[in-house]
Amino acid sequence: MATRPAGRAGRGIIRVMQLKLGEIAQAVNAELDGDPDCPISGVGTLQNAVAGQLSFLANRRYTRYLGDTRASAVVLSREDRAACPVHALIADDPYLAYVKALNLLCPPPAFTPGCHPDASISDSADLHANIFIGANAVIGEGVSVRENAYIGPGCVLEDGVEVGRDSRLVAAVTLCRGVRLGERILLHPGVVIGADGFGIANDAGRWLKIPQLGGVVIGDDVEIGANTTIDRGALEDTIIGEGVKIDNQVQIGHNVVVGAHTAIAGCVAVAGSVRIGRHCMIGGNSSLAGHIEIADDVVITGMSGVANSIREAGMYSSGMPVTDNRRWRRNIVRFLHLDELAKRLMEIEKKVE
Amino acid sequence: MATRPAGRAGRGIIRVMQLKLGEIAQAVNAELDGDPDCPISGVGTLQNAVAGQLSFLANRRYTRYLGDTRASAVVLSREDRAACPVHALIADDPYLAYVKALNLLCPPPAFTPGCHPDASISDSADLHANIFIGANAVIGEGVSVRENAYIGPGCVLEDGVEVGRDSRLVAAVTLCRGVRLGERILLHPGVVIGADGFGIANDAGRWLKIPQLGGVVIGDDVEIGANTTIDRGALEDTIIGEGVKIDNQVQIGHNVVVGAHTAIAGCVAVAGSVRIGRHCMIGGNSSLAGHIEIADDVVITGMSGVANSIREAGMYSSGMPVTDNRRWRRNIVRFLHLDELAKRLMEIEKKVE
Amino acid sequence: MATRPAGRAGRGIIRVMQLKLGEIAQAVNAELDGDPDCPISGVGTLQNAVAGQLSFLANRRYTRYLGDTRASAVVLSREDRAACPVHALIADDPYLAYVKALNLLCPPPAFTPGCHPDASISDSADLHANIFIGANAVIGEGVSVRENAYIGPGCVLEDGVEVGRDSRLVAAVTLCRGVRLGERILLHPGVVIGADGFGIANDAGRWLKIPQLGGVVIGDDVEIGANTTIDRGALEDTIIGEGVKIDNQVQIGHNVVVGAHTAIAGCVAVAGSVRIGRHCMIGGNSSLAGHIEIADDVVITGMSGVANSIREAGMYSSGMPVTDNRRWRRNIVRFLHLDELAKRLMEIEKKVE
Repeated sequence: MATRPAGRAGRGIIRVMQLKLGEIAQAVNAELDGDPDCPISGVGTLQNAVAGQLSFLANRRYTRYLGDTRASAVVLSREDRAACPVHALIADDPYLAYVKALNLLCPPPAFTPGCHPDASISDSADLHANIFIGANAVIGEGVSVRENAYIGPGCVLEDGVEVGRDSRLVAAVTLCRGVRLGERILLHPGVVIGADGFGIANDAGRWLKIPQLGGVVIGDDVEIGANTTIDRGALEDTIIGEGVKIDNQVQIGHNVVVGAHTAIAGCVAVAGSVRIGRHCMIGGNSSLAGHIEIADDVVITGMSGVANSIREAGMYSSGMPVTDNRRWRRNIVRFLHLDELAKRLMEIEKKVE
Repeated sequence: MATRPAGRAGRGIIRVMQLKLGEIAQAVNAELDGDPDCPISGVGTLQNAVAGQLSFLANRRYTRYLGDTRASAVVLSREDRAACPVHALIADDPYLAYVKALNLLCPPPAFTPGCHPDASISDSADLHANIFIGANAVIGEGVSVRENAYIGPGCVLEDGVEVGRDSRLVAAVTLCRGVRLGERILLHPGVVIGADGFGIANDAGRWLKIPQLGGVVIGDDVEIGANTTIDRGALEDTIIGEGVKIDNQVQIGHNVVVGAHTAIAGCVAVAGSVRIGRHCMIGGNSSLAGHIEIADDVVITGMSGVANSIREAGMYSSGMPVTDNRRWRRNIVRFLHLDELAKRLMEIEKKVE
Repeated sequence: MATRPAGRAGRGIIRVMQLKLGEIAQAVNAELDGDPDCPISGVGTLQNAVAGQLSFLANRRYTRYLGDTRASAVVLSREDRAACPVHALIADDPYLAYVKALNLLCPPPAFTPGCHPDASISDSADLHANIFIGANAVIGEGVSVRENAYIGPGCVLEDGVEVGRDSRLVAAVTLCRGVRLGERILLHPGVVIGADGFGIANDAGRWLKIPQLGGVVIGDDVEIGANTTIDRGALEDTIIGEGVKIDNQVQIGHNVVVGAHTAIAGCVAVAGSVRIGRHCMIGGNSSLAGHIEIADDVVITGMSGVANSIREAGMYSSGMPVTDNRRWRRNIVRFLHLDELAKRLMEIEKKVE
């Protein structure tokens, strides 16, 4: 049960490039103080990194580990340079520079173009020559897949789906009829895009389905986590803006519009016809009620319930943190009579005045 | 990022029939005031509909768009007829009549019967001649699939599963051993029915699995959303009543019984052995604790937590809407001492009296 | 819609062994008072069991059914023996003894070893001779599957995955690159293990992905429910300890460590880098915020929000139970001004004193 060292990647499961420290410095726009030819082929924390790895110092709490690090180089701010015993990359925002370096060192997995013989591909599909389609994937009629896209094993693309260039569907992703993906999309396993929205009308006690005719449009550079679902629109489209990042098990209802560069953490539930602004951050397990609007630059902390529109940028919260069970029981009993308590307070106020 | 017009369906992704306005009027039991031969081949909102499309007016807020609509016909109430510049279908409940028309215009996708050569089908399966089985679907021993059912690509039906006539498993649905579906069932991608319920017993600190021997029975006309899970019973069956509509990412525990014509919105968690009545509506992201009963005709608003049985019809709620973060922090600190506040109030009351 | 009798298993969907009562008594360490040769081939509740079935009495509420039971034998405590009209197995913990008997009677489904011809298996996979791989499963490069493992239909095992002996992946499970499963693991359909954790860094308004280089290690005897997701670590591994039981639709973020023998109910959301102790129980639909620690032997009741570390064993709760909607509305309005109410109370206190 001990945590394992960061060397796992070296076992060959995750591809890591070997780069020279000078190349990295240039690419991430950091000042190099050390040997430009020092080879880097991995990353690690200050405590766990070994020779050949790059580390970083972005938080005062970890300064104490700097002096003893065995990393070959560290990304840090100018003020920490003096205390660094190894090569340094000096950056205004060391963490961001480190992440950029990490992206250089660990590009998306490479693939050899081709369609696995066990994939099932419609004759009418329009497939670029330089793509990958994995075993037991299913490609429907009229599907188009652009250059350098990767359709992993077990994915199902129903008729008319469009996948933009450089997109990656890891495995077992389901895209329903006519879903359109932009470029550089990353979809994790179990994602379902374009299932019918939840539209029902009551007809004398029985529910009548409302056919869902809209589509789903996913903008460029979107990442969507495992088992997340995004429904197709009722009449118009559900739209995920460019650069949006969505975590696992998020539910996005029909006709939702998510503005560009918004991030949505795990298990968030967004009901139908919600419009979320740009550059928002929505914390895990929050809920957004239907037909509301969230302004740009809104931060909603985790476990919040949003029942009404939020018109101004800012940080919003609800939810109740745990206490020991006995205290919670006592408080909740009081809460259930809070209106009466308030009225009693007002009566006292009258009496005293 | 602009919303797209309703004409998407016309691009051939969603099948839309062409009908005459008179046929629609008759089928939905509306009074026709206009040309019975007017061709209709789509729908749209009053603002966005174009020639050849049907629209509707069911909400006062949209009356202002009626005069300028370019729809070929509008479903509306008698009082709005005078203001309508185009053909009209007059109905007591215009929205319901519109939904019925929509179902005529957009029937479920058609399919050519047959088993895809890339499906994997047990010899002992009992398959009606007029069904569809998609690529890479897996049909286990003794599975029966009735007339006009559609088993989409990538579905897995374990041994002994029964699928009723006119049912549609869109894609990537998993039905575990012995699950029984009624007729006209619609299951969206990622649905898992019949996985083991969460039954464990503690044996001196270790958890011992309790084998789950029950089944799952899904009544007629049930729709179940993407990535929803419904567990098999422990000893008896988990039962979903006829006409129940369940949204995405809902979890239904073992031995739950959901009464007929109940609707359950997205991300609801229903713990084991809950009995939900008929004609209930359960709002999104609500939780129901185990072993409770919910009466018929109960409405639970979104984000509610139901810890105890609800014995009477009515609307029930809990949950806390967001405020700005600072206000929430101040209020929640007070909440955590609410019992003490209440006691101090009582002391003051004593003193004042 | 009537609940169905417990005889379903007898229809052959769930395998049930036939054992002699004496064999069961010995295996579960119970005292036999009755015929050791009595054949048992099923189980049922006191009310519903029929001849040939074993039942149990573990809760005073059901004592009244004992006298009329038609079960062939009942597991019960010594004090209930006198009232039992049939053979008895006497145990200190009758429920636990019953569960052990149930596990004898209903072992995991048997399988004939072999790889289905419709599975897609890499040449470099290291597969024990005595395993099963189902139709349309995909086995990547360098995957190893140990003795007596069952890889159900539609599963995808990416490159480098390791599956320990006696493990069972029911169907449609996705294991991403390099995920390592221990022995006797049970994974239900739709489980996704090893998708990228949600790591993003903000670069002047755009989100930059943080590559996820860690792995996932699942200890022995772990069971994971349908559509649950467990992300791979950022630098180090996500670790699920031995004997952990996880229900459906749970989300476990990157770098989480779950201690041995902890149970997590359905729809729980565990954010990244949380450390959960051993022998904890986490109730359904609870949320745990990122980077916190939960001590050993902590019980968190359902629907709770845990924002901070819990350092001591005990039972912890939050969440708000439903009331009728009108009462909730009144109380919640007061809650939103609770800090002001508290201040007014303090002013009154000053005045009165």
